[in-house]
Amino acid sequence: MAGSVNKVISFKGLALATLLSTAISSSVCADDGDVWVNQDRLENHILTLGEIGKDQTGATSRLAYSEHDIKGRAYAMRLMNDAGLKITIDEGGNIIGTRLGMDSSLKPIMTGSHIDTVPEGGNYDGIVGSLSAIEVAYVLNENNIMLDHTLKVVIFTNEEGGHVGSRAISGRVTEGMLELKSQMGLSHREGIQKLGGKPEALNKALYEKGDLFAFIELHVEQGGTLDKENIDIGVVTGIVGIRRWLIDVIGEANHAGTTQMASRRDALVTAAEYVLAVNKVALSLEGNHVATVGRLAPEPDAINVVPGKVRTTLEIRDLSSTKIQKVFDDIEKASLSIAIRNGTDIIFNEIQQNAKPALTNRAIQDEVKRAATELGLSFKYIPSGAGHDAQEFVPITPTSMIFVPSKGGLSHSGREFTSAIDMANGANVLLKTILAIDKFDHF
Amino acid sequence: MAGSVNKVISFKGLALATLLSTAISSSVCADDGDVWVNQDRLENHILTLGEIGKDQTGATSRLAYSEHDIKGRAYAMRLMNDAGLKITIDEGGNIIGTRLGMDSSLKPIMTGSHIDTVPEGGNYDGIVGSLSAIEVAYVLNENNIMLDHTLKVVIFTNEEGGHVGSRAISGRVTEGMLELKSQMGLSHREGIQKLGGKPEALNKALYEKGDLFAFIELHVEQGGTLDKENIDIGVVTGIVGIRRWLIDVIGEANHAGTTQMASRRDALVTAAEYVLAVNKVALSLEGNHVATVGRLAPEPDAINVVPGKVRTTLEIRDLSSTKIQKVFDDIEKASLSIAIRNGTDIIFNEIQQNAKPALTNRAIQDEVKRAATELGLSFKYIPSGAGHDAQEFVPITPTSMIFVPSKGGLSHSGREFTSAIDMANGANVLLKTILAIDKFDHF
Repeated sequence: MAGSVNKVISFKGLALATLLSTAISSSVCADDGDVWVNQDRLENHILTLGEIGKDQTGATSRLAYSEHDIKGRAYAMRLMNDAGLKITIDEGGNIIGTRLGMDSSLKPIMTGSHIDTVPEGGNYDGIVGSLSAIEVAYVLNENNIMLDHTLKVVIFTNEEGGHVGSRAISGRVTEGMLELKSQMGLSHREGIQKLGGKPEALNKALYEKGDLFAFIELHVEQGGTLDKENIDIGVVTGIVGIRRWLIDVIGEANHAGTTQMASRRDALVTAAEYVLAVNKVALSLEGNHVATVGRLAPEPDAINVVPGKVRTTLEIRDLSSTKIQKVFDDIEKASLSIAIRNGTDIIFNEIQQNAKPALTNRAIQDEVKRAATELGLSFKYIPSGAGHDAQEFVPITPTSMIFVPSKGGLSHSGREFTSAIDMANGANVLLKTILAIDKFDHF
Repeated sequence: MAGSVNKVISFKGLALATLLSTAISSSVCADDGDVWVNQDRLENHILTLGEIGKDQTGATSRLAYSEHDIKGRAYAMRLMNDAGLKITIDEGGNIIGTRLGMDSSLKPIMTGSHIDTVPEGGNYDGIVGSLSAIEVAYVLNENNIMLDHTLKVVIFTNEEGGHVGSRAISGRVTEGMLELKSQMGLSHREGIQKLGGKPEALNKALYEKGDLFAFIELHVEQGGTLDKENIDIGVVTGIVGIRRWLIDVIGEANHAGTTQMASRRDALVTAAEYVLAVNKVALSLEGNHVATVGRLAPEPDAINVVPGKVRTTLEIRDLSSTKIQKVFDDIEKASLSIAIRNGTDIIFNEIQQNAKPALTNRAIQDEVKRAATELGLSFKYIPSGAGHDAQEFVPITPTSMIFVPSKGGLSHSGREFTSAIDMANGANVLLKTILAIDKFDHF
């Protein structure tokens, strides 16, 4: 059994977990059911990486392709090397650390995440999954555990700027995308080159359907559900689809002094009822869908004029395309009825910023759940409301995600926080899940 | 009886009015109860003036201090001269046409309005009252009617830019106001000079309290009440007071994908409920008050972020300061309750753009009503929701306003319209009211 007694106590529920744990019988290492990650080492790695790009407010700016990104990647590669991984950089600039498996005829298991951040971001989004994947390699290496499948630990290129590295692997980087400027000012083509990739040969980074055995990503929730409900592990059921609309409300602009209340066709009154209809429909339907009005602008936007027009927005997310359509239909129906009642018009125009739902693999979900249970951790099935590198893998391999709590649901903020215990819990679930699916004959 | 039979028929209700009319017994002209304005002449003057500054769309831009304004004023002075008025330009640039009264010990009756327009404005706002006042002078002159009081017909300087001329008369033009730029780019000081005024000697334009016997202004309604209810004459009960607020709604900005509906503190949802509360409170209280939300801006204003803050506005207008306070109190109370229920904050900050209610004189209101009745015209007591030169006179003399219908309530628009019959009705009511109050010993 690795680690001291003190270490065991620091894992929430782990004393119980030890009693409950079921050894995985067919491992080459007799006691790999009892291995787990080193919480202090993982926390130390996370905090050390977090110093790269940190500003005085405690926020981290490690934008993809920046010098801070390059420093962070160098640090990650040093850890990978320490963990016994053989490092390559693929054509997409992804850092891939390989631990060969026993059976070279088997397809690799891939795990990892990203270490780039948004401007003034936090120290956990992407980082927890990246350094936990390396921690898994440390543990396998230290305990001399050989998997049947080759393990590939990956640090993806530029997740925050559009899943650039994971799209290179899934074959979804277009020529047009390569020309787009990143937040650093470099085009993705230039950025990938700067990281050591070869944008002119991206197809060599590609994994076709069936080239991987599975992909698993550990990530902080970026929402407040686990934290609020005091749940240790999120078994991610999928990454939501997104549809977006621009909405125009047309009324009649009028003098705010001379137009009696009953004579008005106030576009802002209709828009206000629309905002509340969105909220009411979303709250009244069962499920985890979300519907948001993020923008709203009245015209002519003068304190003494009854608004004649309002432009506003709608975004709906859910794991089910059918559900998104149902939420939209109910909102549209309610809104049209509101508009008519107020003598105004409302027009919905869908815009092309859509993402299809990406469902995770049920068999891996089951192993994540089993691992959490064995470790004495509470768990909950939840969708991911945000996008992740993992969604790029859904079309090419059985894919899963594990979530750990984000304090207060804060995300893309210097105040984002996940505790060392929660991170270690997630890393342990990742470790146990990899050990379990390594023994799968097939999905 | 002046005018042809055809002319009589063209006045709505005038055949009946002739039967009903009560001669004003003590006039120097025995039949001045039977005089009335010349509808064709008035319409011709209005349409002729409307050509000055008219663009291809039919809108009129006769901004104060512009060459079009100067041309318009020259035309008005020609008409004043034709009507037998002695023309002076006071220090504020106001054109004043004087018809001396019988009794030089009596204070003058003043009537008039403005002929400047907003950019791309209409042909009736201000113009109807200005040229009807001149028409009254024509009628008195043609019928050789001598009033007891001196009549002063006035065309005010720059009403649209802040009641500049009428404020010069009431003593409310400050040094700071003289330095402000008008929409033409000239300062008011330069503009007044350009019109022939003497901004350095404005105090000579001043009428102290008691220096005038009365002030009456005919104006188009600029709202849709008279038109909608098919009423000929508005007996204006006063010019509303205005109070304005900036409102901040504070919630919590969150990721629109990862923040479940029930966990949100969406500032825009609270702001939407606030908008509807304003509308509901205003509609549910009895009276002619209006309450308007003209501006509303969510932050961070992104399609995929739950708004954390909303800045919005409130404007309330009514003839009664107490009523404005009551409407505000009800709105504030409802809004605070909404904010608390939603886990958000709402803060009201009043801004200094206020105008106190200006009540018109009851005795003159009675004469306006009597004149309308005698002419067989329908009437309604209504407040003015918009500001007017007349409100500057309320502190210094008994003041009244007469409204005629605005088609569809359109105002500050090239599509603004008042029919020739409605204008003539208003001018006749103005004429009869002046004849009546001329006989008042006192107010």
